[in-house]
Amino acid sequence: MSPLITLTTDFGTRDGYVAQMKGVILGINPEARVIDVTHDVESFDIMEAALVIRGLSEYFPEGTVHIAVVDPGVGSKRRGIVMRLDERFYVGPDNGLFSLVFARSHTREVREISNPNLFLHQPHPTFHGRDVFAPVSAHLSLGIAFDAIGAVVQDPVRLSIPEPIQTEDGIEGEIIHLDRFGNLTTNIESGMLYRSVDSVQIGGLEIKGIKRFFSEVPTGTPIGVINSFGFLEIAVNLGNASLDLGVQKGSLVKVKWSNSNLR
Amino acid sequence: MSPLITLTTDFGTRDGYVAQMKGVILGINPEARVIDVTHDVESFDIMEAALVIRGLSEYFPEGTVHIAVVDPGVGSKRRGIVMRLDERFYVGPDNGLFSLVFARSHTREVREISNPNLFLHQPHPTFHGRDVFAPVSAHLSLGIAFDAIGAVVQDPVRLSIPEPIQTEDGIEGEIIHLDRFGNLTTNIESGMLYRSVDSVQIGGLEIKGIKRFFSEVPTGTPIGVINSFGFLEIAVNLGNASLDLGVQKGSLVKVKWSNSNLR
Amino acid sequence: MSPLITLTTDFGTRDGYVAQMKGVILGINPEARVIDVTHDVESFDIMEAALVIRGLSEYFPEGTVHIAVVDPGVGSKRRGIVMRLDERFYVGPDNGLFSLVFARSHTREVREISNPNLFLHQPHPTFHGRDVFAPVSAHLSLGIAFDAIGAVVQDPVRLSIPEPIQTEDGIEGEIIHLDRFGNLTTNIESGMLYRSVDSVQIGGLEIKGIKRFFSEVPTGTPIGVINSFGFLEIAVNLGNASLDLGVQKGSLVKVKWSNSNLR
Repeated sequence: MSPLITLTTDFGTRDGYVAQMKGVILGINPEARVIDVTHDVESFDIMEAALVIRGLSEYFPEGTVHIAVVDPGVGSKRRGIVMRLDERFYVGPDNGLFSLVFARSHTREVREISNPNLFLHQPHPTFHGRDVFAPVSAHLSLGIAFDAIGAVVQDPVRLSIPEPIQTEDGIEGEIIHLDRFGNLTTNIESGMLYRSVDSVQIGGLEIKGIKRFFSEVPTGTPIGVINSFGFLEIAVNLGNASLDLGVQKGSLVKVKWSNSNLR
Repeated sequence: MSPLITLTTDFGTRDGYVAQMKGVILGINPEARVIDVTHDVESFDIMEAALVIRGLSEYFPEGTVHIAVVDPGVGSKRRGIVMRLDERFYVGPDNGLFSLVFARSHTREVREISNPNLFLHQPHPTFHGRDVFAPVSAHLSLGIAFDAIGAVVQDPVRLSIPEPIQTEDGIEGEIIHLDRFGNLTTNIESGMLYRSVDSVQIGGLEIKGIKRFFSEVPTGTPIGVINSFGFLEIAVNLGNASLDLGVQKGSLVKVKWSNSNLR
Repeated sequence: MSPLITLTTDFGTRDGYVAQMKGVILGINPEARVIDVTHDVESFDIMEAALVIRGLSEYFPEGTVHIAVVDPGVGSKRRGIVMRLDERFYVGPDNGLFSLVFARSHTREVREISNPNLFLHQPHPTFHGRDVFAPVSAHLSLGIAFDAIGAVVQDPVRLSIPEPIQTEDGIEGEIIHLDRFGNLTTNIESGMLYRSVDSVQIGGLEIKGIKRFFSEVPTGTPIGVINSFGFLEIAVNLGNASLDLGVQKGSLVKVKWSNSNLR
């Protein structure tokens, strides 16, 4: 089985930066299999990348190395880290990129990247993706000892999803992510919706109940569904919910329980 | 030889959905080689994806598994299918995505995806790409028996390219696709142009003859060529034909024969 | 070790053209490993692709085959070529795409692609990427003799980066590339900055000194750095230098030496 290495960045693909990383990886481990996740993360949007990585981690086998580089602080004193979480590896800057996965993991060990034998000599100060994270990941995929990376980190930077609030008659949350279809991800996880939902209020609109899939409603109709990340999502069937409802990241969402029993 | 699996979707790459599919595939068949075709199909544009798949199918070896997910009806009662056409496999929703390849194939067998042992447990109602089509394709690449997929389908959904009309002095067709350069694909296949072409009329313009390549005409000049899909295409050398000629999908195209003999 | 083949084009990915190339390659050499560099080169911008290829070549191992197709002259009499430079192969039209790598290479041999046994039969006049360059590259990755490609070429087309001018008190150069962040690459290589830099003048602005990384300056501040291609780059920390400074490709840049000693 070839070792898998995934790449999540905000580099775009136009300039060849990502390809330089792949060349470095394959130069060190010719058997590595490099999988592009996305290079279209909004520039410097760490939360967006953190949600993407949280969404994909469980679908990759043990041993996979996930690299993420959304790195507004590159070249400063921010650390480079490797997290070993439930037997997958996460390699990148210590700025919170992996903290949503970290929060859900059962086994955790974090190390600072400090062993210069694992870098390219003289890493470029603005391109640690190529000169530090790519070679470290290639060495991990070759099976180096995890403690060869560097010292244990006790306090990795943590990002958190804003916590929804339980109210008398429901839950108040907010929009934390927009996808390219304009679908709106809230911070309300499916597990929080343990009672029957009467309606979802957003952008002055009241949407009745939660449906299972888009085509349950007519074209152009707003709908609440549980999305593939496991969160309540507001969408418009064959439309763009963000544009159609005038709703942005941070907008308020209210879920109101039915008066009936448990869902 | 590693088994090839290609992916054609309208998911974009920004949200990591495609990577989730790759993780599922590689978790089931670590030797699979996953090839991205495109994730930039216009949202819900089944015809566009059907043309892309029609264009690429003949260039992949026998045994290739082509997944396509442009799926406005996901979660509804639309079927999931696998087509075996000329010893390649086509996996996706039964909405016409593969019907242009189907129309050209010599050997055909279609089965409905109904064997739950081939899915992820509890497929998400809005993400059959990851939870149904990806695992079914991975199992196909491992060589499961084709009839293990499910029952035979006799009436898969068919899309068709609008038929050009033979007129007294030529052919009347229409624009069925725009590419990113603004080049305009018509529904007139090269095989229909068996006589010498005097001119092509489009958007109030008359273009003389059919050329072999763009650089036969000066920069900014409209031109008719046979494109790499095998259709008559209207382009502008180093320009954007759609913008320059004000022509859209559905616009009328007339080919006029020369008075001379067979081409 | 699997043979690596990289792809750099202006095709976009939407239409499946790139996938057709991959199908051809994998049909000839099932063990080839195809790496996408970018398909988002600005349409017909040969210089942009040449910079991308110059930037990535040193990061790939010997034996790698780099295909580039930015080909405004496709179908005309322009030659197809393969360059063997420092034991990597470069395959594409003879229009200057590889000339920046060529200029830096130590060993060089260039051959015209003329052996029809290495093509698809009847190459399409507007798609040599699929019908000529892809199959030739696949055969190279299988180890065919280099002289089987065709005759030696003595005079490949050369592009050059405009030469910066040494002035009494510094260097005058220009902007040769914009990346997607709006960062501005100049034609001034790091090796030319052998003296201490007092300031960089661009777009009516004077930027003090050269920094090592973006986060040395506050958000929104213009900065000069050596970029990952090894050129002086003008950027704006967490901003878009091209938009913020109103600067385009071709704009003038002046470096002024300090009165102090060597840097």
